Amino acid sequence: MSSLSHFDESGASRMVDVGAKPETERIARASAVVRMEPATLTLIRDKRMSKGDVLEIARIAGIMGAKKTPDLIPLCHPLALTSVKILFSFPTEDSVRIEAIAKVFARTGVEMEALTAVTVAALTVYDMCKAVDRAMVIESVRLEEKEGGKSGHFIRDPETSPN
Amino acid sequence: MSSLSHFDESGASRMVDVGAKPETERIARASAVVRMEPATLTLIRDKRMSKGDVLEIARIAGIMGAKKTPDLIPLCHPLALTSVKILFSFPTEDSVRIEAIAKVFARTGVEMEALTAVTVAALTVYDMCKAVDRAMVIESVRLEEKEGGKSGHFIRDPETSPN
Amino acid sequence: MSSLSHFDESGASRMVDVGAKPETERIARASAVVRMEPATLTLIRDKRMSKGDVLEIARIAGIMGAKKTPDLIPLCHPLALTSVKILFSFPTEDSVRIEAIAKVFARTGVEMEALTAVTVAALTVYDMCKAVDRAMVIESVRLEEKEGGKSGHFIRDPETSPN
Amino acid sequence: MSSLSHFDESGASRMVDVGAKPETERIARASAVVRMEPATLTLIRDKRMSKGDVLEIARIAGIMGAKKTPDLIPLCHPLALTSVKILFSFPTEDSVRIEAIAKVFARTGVEMEALTAVTVAALTVYDMCKAVDRAMVIESVRLEEKEGGKSGHFIRDPETSPN
Amino acid sequence: MSSLSHFDESGASRMVDVGAKPETERIARASAVVRMEPATLTLIRDKRMSKGDVLEIARIAGIMGAKKTPDLIPLCHPLALTSVKILFSFPTEDSVRIEAIAKVFARTGVEMEALTAVTVAALTVYDMCKAVDRAMVIESVRLEEKEGGKSGHFIRDPETSPN
Amino acid sequence: MSSLSHFDESGASRMVDVGAKPETERIARASAVVRMEPATLTLIRDKRMSKGDVLEIARIAGIMGAKKTPDLIPLCHPLALTSVKILFSFPTEDSVRIEAIAKVFARTGVEMEALTAVTVAALTVYDMCKAVDRAMVIESVRLEEKEGGKSGHFIRDPETSPN
Repeated sequence: MSSLSHFDESGASRMVDVGAKPETERIARASAVVRMEPATLTLIRDKRMSKGDVLEIARIAGIMGAKKTPDLIPLCHPLALTSVKILFSFPTEDSVRIEAIAKVFARTGVEMEALTAVTVAALTVYDMCKAVDRAMVIESVRLEEKEGGKSGHFIRDPETSPN
Repeated sequence: MSSLSHFDESGASRMVDVGAKPETERIARASAVVRMEPATLTLIRDKRMSKGDVLEIARIAGIMGAKKTPDLIPLCHPLALTSVKILFSFPTEDSVRIEAIAKVFARTGVEMEALTAVTVAALTVYDMCKAVDRAMVIESVRLEEKEGGKSGHFIRDPETSPN
Repeated sequence: MSSLSHFDESGASRMVDVGAKPETERIARASAVVRMEPATLTLIRDKRMSKGDVLEIARIAGIMGAKKTPDLIPLCHPLALTSVKILFSFPTEDSVRIEAIAKVFARTGVEMEALTAVTVAALTVYDMCKAVDRAMVIESVRLEEKEGGKSGHFIRDPETSPN
Repeated sequence: MSSLSHFDESGASRMVDVGAKPETERIARASAVVRMEPATLTLIRDKRMSKGDVLEIARIAGIMGAKKTPDLIPLCHPLALTSVKILFSFPTEDSVRIEAIAKVFARTGVEMEALTAVTVAALTVYDMCKAVDRAMVIESVRLEEKEGGKSGHFIRDPETSPN
Repeated sequence: MSSLSHFDESGASRMVDVGAKPETERIARASAVVRMEPATLTLIRDKRMSKGDVLEIARIAGIMGAKKTPDLIPLCHPLALTSVKILFSFPTEDSVRIEAIAKVFARTGVEMEALTAVTVAALTVYDMCKAVDRAMVIESVRLEEKEGGKSGHFIRDPETSPN
Repeated sequence: MSSLSHFDESGASRMVDVGAKPETERIARASAVVRMEPATLTLIRDKRMSKGDVLEIARIAGIMGAKKTPDLIPLCHPLALTSVKILFSFPTEDSVRIEAIAKVFARTGVEMEALTAVTVAALTVYDMCKAVDRAMVIESVRLEEKEGGKSGHFIRDPETSPN
């Protein structure tokens, strides 16, 4: 197993020098699942019942959160994101799945931006619904795919991954 | 099931008016688990091997993240936090558990601050270790306990909770 | 005419000392109007046509903007807002009126928070619709009402005000 | 009338993908007018009377505000601005006109940065003078000119524009 | 020598719990000196020569910087500052002295806010003048006085202090 | 002596237009010294005694601070930093020396980013240790070296520099 690039020889943390890397298009896709009571999901999906659009607010929060990644994650590089998209789906009757796709034309990848987007969106869903379902759980925040850069194309393997 | 307090009668979202509530001490405790390869956990725990202290950096990120909660979660009130603590434990050979305790003396609770703290700490662990273990997953971000305020004392029930 | 309290005797700018004032509830109400082509307004109001909800996104931006007021306005005090609400109406076939109400329990007022809320909401409407109507104009950003604090209750007089 | 590019086919908001656009120089010019009592304008213009320089503080706030545009406007791309300038003029005895010119070398335009600059500068003028003239109004925030990018050169037409 | 309160028994860093402390008025005064070529100082002091007001811009930056203290210093508590003032003096022909006074009514002190204010003001002086005097040095950033809170009144002793 | 580029002909401050400059690699190195009681330094260096790692926290704060430079320094351009490193050394028994190296591939230099990094790191050392040594002083914040850009290679001359 190789060592952690965020530490130098002496153990000092650092923002890794990416100056020698070429600028290429980088794409990352991440996901999160919010598990909740079926009644909570019904409330979210039926905008007449909830009176407002929880997921649209979560989406805006996630997109804005992606832009805050370098403020939140200490050793992340500031990046001029070219695109952020967030999609919602309902794999079961008691869960919302959030997927974010982030893109940039840069010297380093956008995994953290995609992961931050889904996480902030998921926290916002929690915040909007906590008054009716305090026990909601954000499950399985993970990178799904990554493209661009010398580490090549990564797609999560649903079989061998522990999750 | 009651309705969502973040929407008014007409469906407009709002920062809920807490002006009439008394200032009391509010405490919230949240947790997250980061699942990883056992070799990654060994690397994190053996600072000679990793050369640096991943968890201390994640802790700082989590504490700073808690302070950014009102910037991230659209309808959260700005709060003058009086305390944030973050603890790490290793429940299995392939996971780090992160727990945050946030306190405030305010008119509203600090659940979102505690949840944001564990989430940002978990994302930072991911960022620091992603070069050696891209498939890590943040699992089970959830509120553990909440005290203060009229909704009373909440402690997660490990039996009845879906997670 | 009295002098500007943001400058001291020597002309130096300062964050005015409000430490001796009592904490009281402060309320401010501000408004803005965005003038546009009637077809643009139709697009905004008919969510099937626009496919999304421009005003809900503007509302979220305005509420988050209110929280950023001390970051934007150099001499504003940081305040722990207790409430922010944003309302939209359509006084004519070519305009959206935005009204924000901000509240706080503090030693100074929240006019700037209410004004920042309507301004950021208006800029967001512009951003969302600029591809179809570049010539939109934000008109008449102004304080409507202010309560709490020793300067007493202010309500804009539609007759004598120059606007 | 074309549709709103900030929504996708399903109505989801998004940060529009600009990755395929070429990097070119983009310029935008925006303006705002702050209407006030003539005595307030006299106070602003006569620095001996006001004891300090309201407009210089507003200028700094506007330049810093331009840098915060992606934090404020939900779907704006983060941009590495190459220039921001803010100019003041006095078209009448009761108004200050604020003009901002923003530039960038990027894949998308800087209208929102120029508009945010004039808006934050105008709000700062209001804040500095509100103790003597609470009824001031920010009027007519608008894009004046835009260059660069495939939509071509836009200059506001004073005749046909509704404002 | 007592231990560092920012670490707990196990060595974990934390935002110290100040919830049990009473809210009292806290004041802190800090200073910094920027050493430069005498010609640079002449340029700063003669606004006709410099064409603009370097120190007023530095002052605004320092006041805004004080408000950003909890974003910058990891374990600082967010505080609702009630006052920030910044003063300049010219103790020698080659130096500007910057002094900041910060106040708050809170459960913890404002030393870091006062120190951040002078530091950001000093960095801004450097930025404004670096094109003509790259070798400027910020010297002697230090706490001058502190009042309020159980640690009592601190005034720097010019004799026994190492600086 | 040339004039200050941050002011235009009329004395208005501005973010200088760097759009016509080529993108090149820019490097800056800055340093700061924190003077303290020898016992405080012993406490910092002996992590068993302090129970935690003051300097690692200061390093993270400094790196994150570098990313906040355009938020802090009014006329700085936003830059996509490609690298930030912070090193500590102990030139005497009562001082910590902090050195930061910042890099970017951009149209303007990174002096302010390197200076902000060392300054925020130094303030964090102060914050962590102030309970045991309130009289600590941050001394000698200065640019050490600068490379890239038309102004050429600058290395501080220890002989002729006033510090």
